[in-house]
Amino acid sequence: MPIGGIRGVLTLKNIQQIVLGIDPGTALCGYGIVKENETGFEALSFGSIETFKETPMPKRLEAIFYQLSELVIKYNPDILSIEKLFFNKNVTTAISVGQARGVCLLVAAQHDLEIFEYTPGEVKLSLTGHGKALKQQVGFMIKSLLNLEEIPHPDDTADALALALCYFFRNNKYYDALRG
Amino acid sequence: MPIGGIRGVLTLKNIQQIVLGIDPGTALCGYGIVKENETGFEALSFGSIETFKETPMPKRLEAIFYQLSELVIKYNPDILSIEKLFFNKNVTTAISVGQARGVCLLVAAQHDLEIFEYTPGEVKLSLTGHGKALKQQVGFMIKSLLNLEEIPHPDDTADALALALCYFFRNNKYYDALRG
Repeated sequence: MPIGGIRGVLTLKNIQQIVLGIDPGTALCGYGIVKENETGFEALSFGSIETFKETPMPKRLEAIFYQLSELVIKYNPDILSIEKLFFNKNVTTAISVGQARGVCLLVAAQHDLEIFEYTPGEVKLSLTGHGKALKQQVGFMIKSLLNLEEIPHPDDTADALALALCYFFRNNKYYDALRG
Repeated sequence: MPIGGIRGVLTLKNIQQIVLGIDPGTALCGYGIVKENETGFEALSFGSIETFKETPMPKRLEAIFYQLSELVIKYNPDILSIEKLFFNKNVTTAISVGQARGVCLLVAAQHDLEIFEYTPGEVKLSLTGHGKALKQQVGFMIKSLLNLEEIPHPDDTADALALALCYFFRNNKYYDALRG
């Protein structure tokens, strides 16, 4: 029995993916879980895992590990979209972000997520059409695309949602076509 | 009923600790597990966890996570002695080492190990009496202190054993006295 329907809609239904965006860090580790639906995108969950500098680093990394693992088990994402680490003059920050990033990548590996990395410029370009867009422009697009009442904050949460959305724009011919 | 014995020996018996030394890295993650005994030190296990650059980074971190977790479960160390990350001009290396280090600290946190960090200079000073000792001098001391037939290699393995030994020298009044 043949199944009818508009080709584009069928395609969208077939590829509905759940993407976990992460902006890694030890003080604040932003996450955003985004799903495609028939009319666009839906944010299933978003926020920032917060750990405190008074807590020893291993325990902070453990907190990130368990909270992220819980999110992955609950929402079962297919993809991890994470910021590509770029040259940064502050080595101390690089080590600290690296440690948190290592834990995030571990969780992704344990749950067989496929991993995509984007630079901040790639994220801005995908969401706004400009690689050097202002934070507010990116925030406005996140709010619009996910039908949120306000721009998510802190920045780590917004960045994580932007990373999740960036994956869809860069890996989906349907959306590429929409954007011309 | 009073328990007799030589005070020094009793002290040593009471504090027998197992220390896991780690020299973190993604290509080679050195480990050395050292235990105190009545006559000195004993290497319970040592080596390097090797992962290959053809393997995606998350899977490499996962391999380190599981192999390190197995070692901790098998030997049940009390202490993790890990290299303190110092200023390094190569930011790419800092991120890569940071990611592996994050996974090591996570394993330590999950198994409630107490964590101590030492700079390479502190390790050299503890083992040889010189903060700028040559690699061979440190290697010779590792071989002698652990009654090994040869200096352990690769360097990552030797460095991990040196970190484990450094903990004992810096945290044990008995050994301080010996060296005093």
